[in-house]
Amino acid sequence: MARIDPRKMERIAREEVPFVGQLGIRFEHIEDGTARAVLPMTAENGLLRPGGTISGPVMMGMADYVMYACVISMVGPALMAVTTNLNANFLRRPRPVDLVAEGRLLKCGKRLAYGEVTLWSAGAPEDPVCHVTLTYALPPADAG
Amino acid sequence: MARIDPRKMERIAREEVPFVGQLGIRFEHIEDGTARAVLPMTAENGLLRPGGTISGPVMMGMADYVMYACVISMVGPALMAVTTNLNANFLRRPRPVDLVAEGRLLKCGKRLAYGEVTLWSAGAPEDPVCHVTLTYALPPADAG
Amino acid sequence: MARIDPRKMERIAREEVPFVGQLGIRFEHIEDGTARAVLPMTAENGLLRPGGTISGPVMMGMADYVMYACVISMVGPALMAVTTNLNANFLRRPRPVDLVAEGRLLKCGKRLAYGEVTLWSAGAPEDPVCHVTLTYALPPADAG
Amino acid sequence: MARIDPRKMERIAREEVPFVGQLGIRFEHIEDGTARAVLPMTAENGLLRPGGTISGPVMMGMADYVMYACVISMVGPALMAVTTNLNANFLRRPRPVDLVAEGRLLKCGKRLAYGEVTLWSAGAPEDPVCHVTLTYALPPADAG
Repeated sequence: MARIDPRKMERIAREEVPFVGQLGIRFEHIEDGTARAVLPMTAENGLLRPGGTISGPVMMGMADYVMYACVISMVGPALMAVTTNLNANFLRRPRPVDLVAEGRLLKCGKRLAYGEVTLWSAGAPEDPVCHVTLTYALPPADAG
Repeated sequence: MARIDPRKMERIAREEVPFVGQLGIRFEHIEDGTARAVLPMTAENGLLRPGGTISGPVMMGMADYVMYACVISMVGPALMAVTTNLNANFLRRPRPVDLVAEGRLLKCGKRLAYGEVTLWSAGAPEDPVCHVTLTYALPPADAG
Repeated sequence: MARIDPRKMERIAREEVPFVGQLGIRFEHIEDGTARAVLPMTAENGLLRPGGTISGPVMMGMADYVMYACVISMVGPALMAVTTNLNANFLRRPRPVDLVAEGRLLKCGKRLAYGEVTLWSAGAPEDPVCHVTLTYALPPADAG
Repeated sequence: MARIDPRKMERIAREEVPFVGQLGIRFEHIEDGTARAVLPMTAENGLLRPGGTISGPVMMGMADYVMYACVISMVGPALMAVTTNLNANFLRRPRPVDLVAEGRLLKCGKRLAYGEVTLWSAGAPEDPVCHVTLTYALPPADAG
């Protein structure tokens, strides 16, 4: 497994992922343990209201979703894969523009996958707003 | 400062904290760097739907909110206090019952506060579902 | 398995654990997923030199060792258990006295164990100098 | 400040950094918030003994040292900068060869600096053995 259709991933999220699945996040690519997605500022997802900002739970939920896409690009649609650790460092306040997240796996073993996701406000990739590392536990191969 | 009125804290959350403020979390006490809160499973907050479970972002958002209460019980309503690190370890799947979270500060310095929050499904405090450590940056005393 | 002889644990460390095994750490008890140990300030381990302080690697190594004792009190001498995550928060500068570390497991599953270790300068348990959370990967039961 | 003489950094470490300063780590470059260093397997630092492996505390100590170099390349020799958080993920067992570590800052603010260090066995940069994120608290500018 190597490349995942972004539209298919978004459909899975809308149907199965609570909260984050409703934000309208769109993937630009999902391939070989990497993924890149955009969270749009729109009226639909409520992020465009006056004084609105992208909250911590939104950024962590997006990072978890992007890393999940990285994992399934390596192991297939392992719906049993579960996050065991999420470590988020909040570096700057996001600006009221689209949020971009880029993830990559640093290890994909038989039992554990580990990677990092960097998030930035569109147009300012050199000033990340949040950096997240995540560990996923993978189901035993014979559990399917 | 030592004791915070739980109702006042809930009112601040409803008005100012996106996403988490709408979950109907209720505090049992907030005092001297500790706090305890309950997230009810209700129709109102959408957690009672069939197949529903309490997601990772909900648990992390609740932990952040509980730690924020711990911090203001020590430094007053420091609205400028910001989370700089949140490290969540997901230990067990929450059961479809109320979620309890208990937090305590391990340090409250002039510039940084650090503490931990343990979350469990109501009735099973000996089997935590999630353990979170958090760091808050505190605004300089002369910034007010 | 429930209770481990502290002297036996110290012997394993001296023979098998590089660096930390040479510090002369002594366990007070190891039982049911908890453990407590003391790192003495002595001439032998070099911590008593003028200007000497207990460094970060020493505290992290001690925390790892104490959590390892907690793990084997639950699963037996699983020499294959390996640390996959260690998250250390340094809260205060240690004083030039013995260092105490107390650990407890929050989860001991089939594949992962997770716990926390709190370290303080002897005589000041209310002011921890370091708080560490750790995850261990456990070998499959049929790997022996 | 932008570029630091590697030999000067190594001299500071030998004189001031306990444990890690004695390992013979050599910097290849320290510049603009990035740094790269090598830990040699030699008889001198005891890493070459039979059955020897590079332990967790050694990798964490090296990561801390490399990030410290990244920090001083941005703020000058801030001897008061202290590590407040170190989060290490152990991904693979190091091979018995030189260990390489590369660090980069993701943020260098007035009060906090945050970055990541990736470590790998020489010759295998695509398979990191350890990934570490670190936060440093910086002394107030007027404290000097």
